[in-house]
Amino acid sequence: MIKRLGVLTSGGDAPGMNAAIRAVVLMANAHNIDVVGFRHGFNGLFEDDCQTLLPQHVQHIIQHGGTLLKSARCKALQLPGGPAQAADALHRHQLDALVIIGGDGSFRGALAIAEHYRGQIIGVPGTIDNDVDGTDYTIGFATAIDTALDAIDKIRDTADAFERIFLVELMGRHSGYIALSAGIAAGAEQIICPEFVQLTADNLKTVLSPIRHAQLLRGKSSYIMVVAENSYPGGTTALAQALSDELGVECRACILGHIQRGGSPVGADRILATKLGAFAVEQLVAGAHLMMAGELNQQAVLYPLDKTGDRAKQIDPYLVRWQQLIASD
Amino acid sequence: MIKRLGVLTSGGDAPGMNAAIRAVVLMANAHNIDVVGFRHGFNGLFEDDCQTLLPQHVQHIIQHGGTLLKSARCKALQLPGGPAQAADALHRHQLDALVIIGGDGSFRGALAIAEHYRGQIIGVPGTIDNDVDGTDYTIGFATAIDTALDAIDKIRDTADAFERIFLVELMGRHSGYIALSAGIAAGAEQIICPEFVQLTADNLKTVLSPIRHAQLLRGKSSYIMVVAENSYPGGTTALAQALSDELGVECRACILGHIQRGGSPVGADRILATKLGAFAVEQLVAGAHLMMAGELNQQAVLYPLDKTGDRAKQIDPYLVRWQQLIASD
Amino acid sequence: MIKRLGVLTSGGDAPGMNAAIRAVVLMANAHNIDVVGFRHGFNGLFEDDCQTLLPQHVQHIIQHGGTLLKSARCKALQLPGGPAQAADALHRHQLDALVIIGGDGSFRGALAIAEHYRGQIIGVPGTIDNDVDGTDYTIGFATAIDTALDAIDKIRDTADAFERIFLVELMGRHSGYIALSAGIAAGAEQIICPEFVQLTADNLKTVLSPIRHAQLLRGKSSYIMVVAENSYPGGTTALAQALSDELGVECRACILGHIQRGGSPVGADRILATKLGAFAVEQLVAGAHLMMAGELNQQAVLYPLDKTGDRAKQIDPYLVRWQQLIASD
Amino acid sequence: MIKRLGVLTSGGDAPGMNAAIRAVVLMANAHNIDVVGFRHGFNGLFEDDCQTLLPQHVQHIIQHGGTLLKSARCKALQLPGGPAQAADALHRHQLDALVIIGGDGSFRGALAIAEHYRGQIIGVPGTIDNDVDGTDYTIGFATAIDTALDAIDKIRDTADAFERIFLVELMGRHSGYIALSAGIAAGAEQIICPEFVQLTADNLKTVLSPIRHAQLLRGKSSYIMVVAENSYPGGTTALAQALSDELGVECRACILGHIQRGGSPVGADRILATKLGAFAVEQLVAGAHLMMAGELNQQAVLYPLDKTGDRAKQIDPYLVRWQQLIASD
Repeated sequence: MIKRLGVLTSGGDAPGMNAAIRAVVLMANAHNIDVVGFRHGFNGLFEDDCQTLLPQHVQHIIQHGGTLLKSARCKALQLPGGPAQAADALHRHQLDALVIIGGDGSFRGALAIAEHYRGQIIGVPGTIDNDVDGTDYTIGFATAIDTALDAIDKIRDTADAFERIFLVELMGRHSGYIALSAGIAAGAEQIICPEFVQLTADNLKTVLSPIRHAQLLRGKSSYIMVVAENSYPGGTTALAQALSDELGVECRACILGHIQRGGSPVGADRILATKLGAFAVEQLVAGAHLMMAGELNQQAVLYPLDKTGDRAKQIDPYLVRWQQLIASD
Repeated sequence: MIKRLGVLTSGGDAPGMNAAIRAVVLMANAHNIDVVGFRHGFNGLFEDDCQTLLPQHVQHIIQHGGTLLKSARCKALQLPGGPAQAADALHRHQLDALVIIGGDGSFRGALAIAEHYRGQIIGVPGTIDNDVDGTDYTIGFATAIDTALDAIDKIRDTADAFERIFLVELMGRHSGYIALSAGIAAGAEQIICPEFVQLTADNLKTVLSPIRHAQLLRGKSSYIMVVAENSYPGGTTALAQALSDELGVECRACILGHIQRGGSPVGADRILATKLGAFAVEQLVAGAHLMMAGELNQQAVLYPLDKTGDRAKQIDPYLVRWQQLIASD
Repeated sequence: MIKRLGVLTSGGDAPGMNAAIRAVVLMANAHNIDVVGFRHGFNGLFEDDCQTLLPQHVQHIIQHGGTLLKSARCKALQLPGGPAQAADALHRHQLDALVIIGGDGSFRGALAIAEHYRGQIIGVPGTIDNDVDGTDYTIGFATAIDTALDAIDKIRDTADAFERIFLVELMGRHSGYIALSAGIAAGAEQIICPEFVQLTADNLKTVLSPIRHAQLLRGKSSYIMVVAENSYPGGTTALAQALSDELGVECRACILGHIQRGGSPVGADRILATKLGAFAVEQLVAGAHLMMAGELNQQAVLYPLDKTGDRAKQIDPYLVRWQQLIASD
Repeated sequence: MIKRLGVLTSGGDAPGMNAAIRAVVLMANAHNIDVVGFRHGFNGLFEDDCQTLLPQHVQHIIQHGGTLLKSARCKALQLPGGPAQAADALHRHQLDALVIIGGDGSFRGALAIAEHYRGQIIGVPGTIDNDVDGTDYTIGFATAIDTALDAIDKIRDTADAFERIFLVELMGRHSGYIALSAGIAAGAEQIICPEFVQLTADNLKTVLSPIRHAQLLRGKSSYIMVVAENSYPGGTTALAQALSDELGVECRACILGHIQRGGSPVGADRILATKLGAFAVEQLVAGAHLMMAGELNQQAVLYPLDKTGDRAKQIDPYLVRWQQLIASD
């Protein structure tokens, strides 16, 4: 029986992490389970940096960006003996279970701890990148899309006013979820992401020909390319320079960067975070261990924690096809 | 073979209708199909109020609220002979198919026309109310949630500052989708919607007791009730008055109203609209008739147009249970 | 010499109050002055509800709506003996000065306390209504305008889509600052505020004729009237009904209400609050008493606290003339 | 007597340019003056790229970013004979006057044309940089501040969550108006702009010591530096790298870029644009020539067009002093 559980947020922070913490605390409270929050991700375990979390501590945090528990990557956990030390901390705090809110990197850390830990471990997928298997969406992804859209819509205004070509770099680590979704939603003329093409200085032609086509045939008033980070050697600024050189027209780069991690979470992220945080606690009570609480087809489900990084999740093929149809147009 | 199709937006307008029109036009263009847009819903058929829609007409409208084709309810279609007259207009314009973007009321109108029309008819679900069967979400619903949230978050600020009780009335016609989703996402202390309770002056107790409980036990700094429209005889203002009288504390009502229909669509609505608008045209080409293009489990699907109003779609039972757990807390 | 000062927020809350509290605390800290914050406006004095405010308490609150000190109206201060009792509390807390952030009603309360208080008193104008003399703008006004605009822009979307007439009621107590500014900024077809016309059921003609003119001559796609609260007996809903009856066209009312008090303050309000909060402390140090820290022509100035409610401040006559020109057009 | 006037937007686009165009057209219409809009700034004169602007063309554009007339820099005007050619175009179109909406660079172009033009010329200050003399604020500045704030608030979320140091680069060409205003409004820990310090690799100490001070003494959870563009050789990315090297802590750069030029204008910009656009036309009618329509102390005024680039306008010294006080804290 679970009497006491720990919770932490780990890895890159994402909008909705606070909402997930809140759901964990409220659901635990409904089951008369005490909650201890560790700060700065797994570091809180090593440094005994923690706080009791009562319902009043999570009041009115559902709408706040960031995470009240802070997030971080944790070097100590990577060291030999690190996972055992973390497990010791959990035992010392008499925690029957641990909830990790983060991405698949954080889940790998949790799996390492599990080898030494007598309690239960469950993950909740919190990352803007949506690159976690076992859930249709990760917490923070929907907000990151809308933050990106807000920026791209503004760039469209000025691009239209000046009839310019803009490259907008979005986050996503090694996946194109954010770029594809935001690009389609923004009506971007072109989207460059790893799933479409591996771009180098030598195969710029695939990128150039739709631009030339658009300029010649359609008299487009502006041209926006959404670029996933890590799509071009040297980055998006270098790509903009290369395109400017080829086209003889100024192409400007705009790097959104960490803005995409912040902001009040949108409704979809708040609801997903609430659902998965609550479900995680319920499933711990029911005995779940080494699982992730995900949502598939709008249904909360459990998914093996060690399979969340398999990269089996596919970008919506319909949207991929749509964009290729439009871009070639 | 489809050479020419008509498109119109009908019923209450919803954010994302423009994105759907754009997708219809771009996909039709890819299939070398001409598009005629009728204005003011079905009225455009009766009044010959229409325009050719080329790709350049839908450039950069994906981010705009409202609908460039205007929307309306249509009395002429309700009259005897109305549907036949509408079908005549479609024949006169040599349209092989018609795309209706709207809710299930608009789809009923389309079914009536279909009895006299030789071409194909397909529906695309556009309404903020999410009360259409055959699709997990309707176009506009996600934006309406976020518009409501933005307002409720602001009210939370002032409610907190003043320690007041607020009732926020949201739209939804006869369904509680918007109220439940926005209420949970806002962390509302109570949600009143038809699916939970049919409220009258005589059973106010179910509403009052959680308020009293919260005030006594939790020292809440503010108390927000999200109320679906049509939840109380006399409206939410009357309900606020009744609660004020019972509690001896001022309860204020805030009626969001039509704000929820406007605004730039969020990413989820732009993507859904793009997907369903494009899919509708592809399915017309493939022979679909009397169907709605919906999305179930992230997959674009066809659903019989005459079943979209069956009210078989259920509010997420997990969220219903969550809210009851929290509210009773 | 001031060693210790009190600060409170009083009356209707306004975005930027937190920014003003922060500036008071940071500037006091720079002068080695301790700060005590009273909660719930003047009530905090009567109930000894207060807290020491250090720089870390006001970290990262500049962007938050509401007020961390809570606001309230205070009945105890209105009672005979109330002001003397409040002064006693200030003496008991050994406060050399008091900063009141609020509107002219709160300043009247402060003047009453001053008759019994040996320390210095200074006011900082915080109210969305902009109805305080001695300052060009009050803290919160700019944010309230932009919140109203955001709502009216959304209503414009749906009004355009449906070709409807909408009445949008804005706050402002007995002044038309918000209505005029937001109305002009929204491009409202008509603005109704006390400064323009005292409307009754008998002189609806002045309102009706521009609507008829617009409908007949300009084929306007939508018609938005911005209405200051308290502009019509029975309220804006009653006015909408009266107009619907006269015009034979549905006119819908939208009451923005308390949404206008919330939200993250815009830049102009954060800067004004920072400037006036800091200036108030500097002027207390310099000996100011019974003054308000205001801003005139971008210059921080002192203004007699007992003259802030004289209603001498005028709505920009150029904008009044502009609107009359446009509306009659 | 003016029967016909031209209008164009020139230089970097700014939110509110559409609102200014609208005001020019509506006020001209009230004076029975025809309006011709030239596209792409002065280029429209050289390429005869223009359109008649009637009131219906400017309906509902007040809330839109960008400029419907497009903006651009114009090489043809810089060539020998360019100004005379532009004046010829104005004569050929029988224009009695020209309204230029732009910054002081555009006004210099206008002055060159004036030497060959028989009509009247007036400027309206439209640029986000606020670096035009003769007006307290330029059209677009307030919106750019709020766009920057929105981004910095989001970065604060993630900076807080991760306890990181962020550098946010804002626009402003060679002035620090945007950086100072946005930095203060965001509660930035440090602001770097030309008016404060001319930074090089050799005097990084002035920047480093407040960071070290803050880290040691205050345990700040995040540290945000707002940096005006052109503040450091090699740009803000290079500065971030230099600081990272010195501090041994990762400092991340975020370059907002052109996002700041886009977006729906805030109320202050819409009102300023409306006032100055209308005033410009009224003053042309009254005989003004070679003047700019500005606003000083909330009063519309005329200012000599050839003095708008004198760089005599000062950043608010009170705010400069405040930031130095806070940063040294």
